[in-house]
Amino acid sequence: MTTASHQLADIPGLVRCETHSVPDILARATGMTRTAYPHEEVYGDYCTIQQYIDCPPEDVFDYLSDINTLDEYSVSTRAFEPAGEPGLFVGWDTLAENTRIYMRIEPNREALTLDYHCAWDQGEELWMIYLFRIVPAEQVLGKPGSVVLWTNCHHPNYDKNPYPELSPDPERIWVGDLWPLFYAGHRIELENLKRILEYRSGRGLPLAVAPGPEAAA
Amino acid sequence: MTTASHQLADIPGLVRCETHSVPDILARATGMTRTAYPHEEVYGDYCTIQQYIDCPPEDVFDYLSDINTLDEYSVSTRAFEPAGEPGLFVGWDTLAENTRIYMRIEPNREALTLDYHCAWDQGEELWMIYLFRIVPAEQVLGKPGSVVLWTNCHHPNYDKNPYPELSPDPERIWVGDLWPLFYAGHRIELENLKRILEYRSGRGLPLAVAPGPEAAA
Repeated sequence: MTTASHQLADIPGLVRCETHSVPDILARATGMTRTAYPHEEVYGDYCTIQQYIDCPPEDVFDYLSDINTLDEYSVSTRAFEPAGEPGLFVGWDTLAENTRIYMRIEPNREALTLDYHCAWDQGEELWMIYLFRIVPAEQVLGKPGSVVLWTNCHHPNYDKNPYPELSPDPERIWVGDLWPLFYAGHRIELENLKRILEYRSGRGLPLAVAPGPEAAA
Repeated sequence: MTTASHQLADIPGLVRCETHSVPDILARATGMTRTAYPHEEVYGDYCTIQQYIDCPPEDVFDYLSDINTLDEYSVSTRAFEPAGEPGLFVGWDTLAENTRIYMRIEPNREALTLDYHCAWDQGEELWMIYLFRIVPAEQVLGKPGSVVLWTNCHHPNYDKNPYPELSPDPERIWVGDLWPLFYAGHRIELENLKRILEYRSGRGLPLAVAPGPEAAA
């Protein structure tokens, strides 16, 4: 059927309708489908979670693009302020003692993707990347609102701090020690995000609360 | 600590370092982390899979943006051709008898996102959306190559064919009956993609094989 089939013959292991019958393919897929999957298998190499939020996609994008909103929906990162270099911010990660977190937000409004590039202790190499994508729920679920996709990838630096000399305390926990809790921790934060945005969006309140000098006083 | 904290007090259920101690937060996350998760919990509402491919991100993007490559890496969709309207294609889904699949590819080269908007039987309402995002592995895994993120969302039309009158046969399986197999089926296809691209990329071969008139003959 396909014109290119003969050029695939050298590549081992392909499963295609030319080489496997439909019943074979369905049997294979059924065999790979299990009642349950171990944590390490689902969240070991990549940690992706998803959430429906009853709030317009552009509003979710704007909220997440504003670094000040981490003060609200994140569990532990607080008080980001400009770190000198344009676009670079530094705040605190209260999960650990005296720990600075550096961050740069890379948004793409057209694609509704938005990534936090960050790292503990230093802002030169932002290797800890939080990948977000906001999808119009009208398209994918047939209803208004947004689907937020959030992925982290298991970078080797999670397993070994590349700059141990920058730690404020040699006994301090390393962010990568928490990788097994990323699934649950990010679920908590995505639930925070949903609660905040749906509360405000549903009541017609402003979504982002920009800290002003008087509020900080 | 945060300037906005007092404005969050009315929103129930938030878990934040101002209201929960770090040990409390870690205990909560640990409690949500389980040895294993049921299939329905992980892949019931959303089906996301990920794969590392040792091939440059732009090349993976180009390959997936070319509708002809579905002939190679997909298990069952074949022979797409223009369907009249610009950007709309129609092919066959060999998982079911005499079943046409319509598709429009929506790529965003800057963001490296790329979505297949498709549907069985008709091309007016392309509700079945395959969301792809290609991430440079250098950024997220510290090595060359690509990470492919692939998400489908459980649109209600999977549960009920919105146009049963367009089915070529009232007894035909509906695409949504296969939703429980999407995790496994998409894993097979992503493995095909990896094998094809790594085979060719590793040998310096052209990645996409465009069907020409002579090949089709």
